[in-house]
Amino acid sequence: MDKGPHLIKKIPDMMNIVKVHKQNQIIGFVPTMGFLHKGHISLIQSARKDNDIVVVSIFVNPKQFAPNEDIDRYPRNIKRDIEICREQGVDYIFYPCAEEMYPNGFQTSVSLSELTKGLCGKSRPTHFSGVTTVLTKLFNIIQPDNVYFGQKDAQQAVIVKQMIKDLNYPITMHILPIIREDNGIAMSSRNKYLSAGQMKNAEVLNKSLKLAETLIKQGERNCNRLKKIIYHKIENENRNSNANIKIDYIEIVNFDNLQPIENVRTNTLIAIAVFIGQTRLIDNIVIK
Amino acid sequence: MDKGPHLIKKIPDMMNIVKVHKQNQIIGFVPTMGFLHKGHISLIQSARKDNDIVVVSIFVNPKQFAPNEDIDRYPRNIKRDIEICREQGVDYIFYPCAEEMYPNGFQTSVSLSELTKGLCGKSRPTHFSGVTTVLTKLFNIIQPDNVYFGQKDAQQAVIVKQMIKDLNYPITMHILPIIREDNGIAMSSRNKYLSAGQMKNAEVLNKSLKLAETLIKQGERNCNRLKKIIYHKIENENRNSNANIKIDYIEIVNFDNLQPIENVRTNTLIAIAVFIGQTRLIDNIVIK
Repeated sequence: MDKGPHLIKKIPDMMNIVKVHKQNQIIGFVPTMGFLHKGHISLIQSARKDNDIVVVSIFVNPKQFAPNEDIDRYPRNIKRDIEICREQGVDYIFYPCAEEMYPNGFQTSVSLSELTKGLCGKSRPTHFSGVTTVLTKLFNIIQPDNVYFGQKDAQQAVIVKQMIKDLNYPITMHILPIIREDNGIAMSSRNKYLSAGQMKNAEVLNKSLKLAETLIKQGERNCNRLKKIIYHKIENENRNSNANIKIDYIEIVNFDNLQPIENVRTNTLIAIAVFIGQTRLIDNIVIK
Repeated sequence: MDKGPHLIKKIPDMMNIVKVHKQNQIIGFVPTMGFLHKGHISLIQSARKDNDIVVVSIFVNPKQFAPNEDIDRYPRNIKRDIEICREQGVDYIFYPCAEEMYPNGFQTSVSLSELTKGLCGKSRPTHFSGVTTVLTKLFNIIQPDNVYFGQKDAQQAVIVKQMIKDLNYPITMHILPIIREDNGIAMSSRNKYLSAGQMKNAEVLNKSLKLAETLIKQGERNCNRLKKIIYHKIENENRNSNANIKIDYIEIVNFDNLQPIENVRTNTLIAIAVFIGQTRLIDNIVIK
């Protein structure tokens, strides 16, 4: 075989390739929307270590964007993505177009009833059904033994884990830590939208989470007080910088079932979503 | 290996067995709710011819029954089912309990938006989502190369075919002809509910479809006229026998997309659903 990555655009081609490898090799899969950054690279590197074959999918999935969302301006750079995948030793990039994934007459959806209600599901009510539908397809096409997701999309990770369990996929899920810029901002393709000034404003997400973490280490357990402290930290940044910062949510929940809790305990997720201008950013920490 | 069938009740056991066979054998799968009759047997015999390994599932799936429907009195006879499977050379019977399939916290559903709207979907709005959800699980557990469904549940067959296509399952779907009693009644586990007198009344389903078929052979193409003729044939039986017969629907549709049509053409499905007393029976013919 040539040195990878092979770029595969058609579902039957990908399935034929998988069929051959499946006979005696372990397949690792990293689903992405492309415009790869160091967060994706950490997933790919984990996949490379654990598996014989590594498949990365690049698909800006229309079903997980609402009509008012940013699918058209979502950043893309397939040439650079291929180069990154080559450097990281990826074997195959699955790169289908929307018509290949959702041909005329497509009408099946996969959805979860409970885990999708809170957090990002409140302001993006159709988002997660788009995610679980496309992942069901990708899991059937690529038939991975291992899949890799980032903790940055914490709710997504919990939902996909539950979906794998509910639908009995023979797949092991790996959730890897958030990778951050030097200034603490969580890596995200959407950071591309931010001006230099907004990038500075965006530091407040991680800073407010770090503040909460410090207070928890000092003994604070009350979630309402912690949420208020995060709220004021972000609102201060908004006032002082005269930036257009709008809080979507600040939630403290059980990381297993995403249910709100009153007091911090083990495995607590503190998750926030904030608009900086038009750009919606999310960040979180898990208190182990 | 012993002479089958092996009765497997746990999902991980079934998946471990499948993993071994998957390496070099073709798996055929017949999903059932048990109380097997000659219709099921014809599916099993087809599966036996085409595959190395034949798996039959027996699971009275609560998700495909509405609260007002007949799950509790749905007929069951696992001992007889095992005997039938033994005679037919089935390798494995997958026989999970409801808690095994839907443990606490289960919340994922698979549904189709268009094909589920008409015909049986009108009077049973949650039925098909229950079917496609359990089949997604069963397909992931059993990983069949071939699956076998009866044409008696014509809408179900079209829906499952679309779901397999939409979700990219590497599965070939086989739809086999309706098997009938000597009196023409389509084989169904629910026939068990009928008294001798109701069994006689139930003959009108097939008879009215045969009448329509004869008229079509003689040149009739108009679907409204054909539906009226079927309607009057059934209503006549109702009046003459003083039975409690109630028509749920009489529909003439394109068998590919289940859309109503005005004139009979190739691949037309004539489908009816009729209550005989409390028992809901369905039947259909396809005009090739």
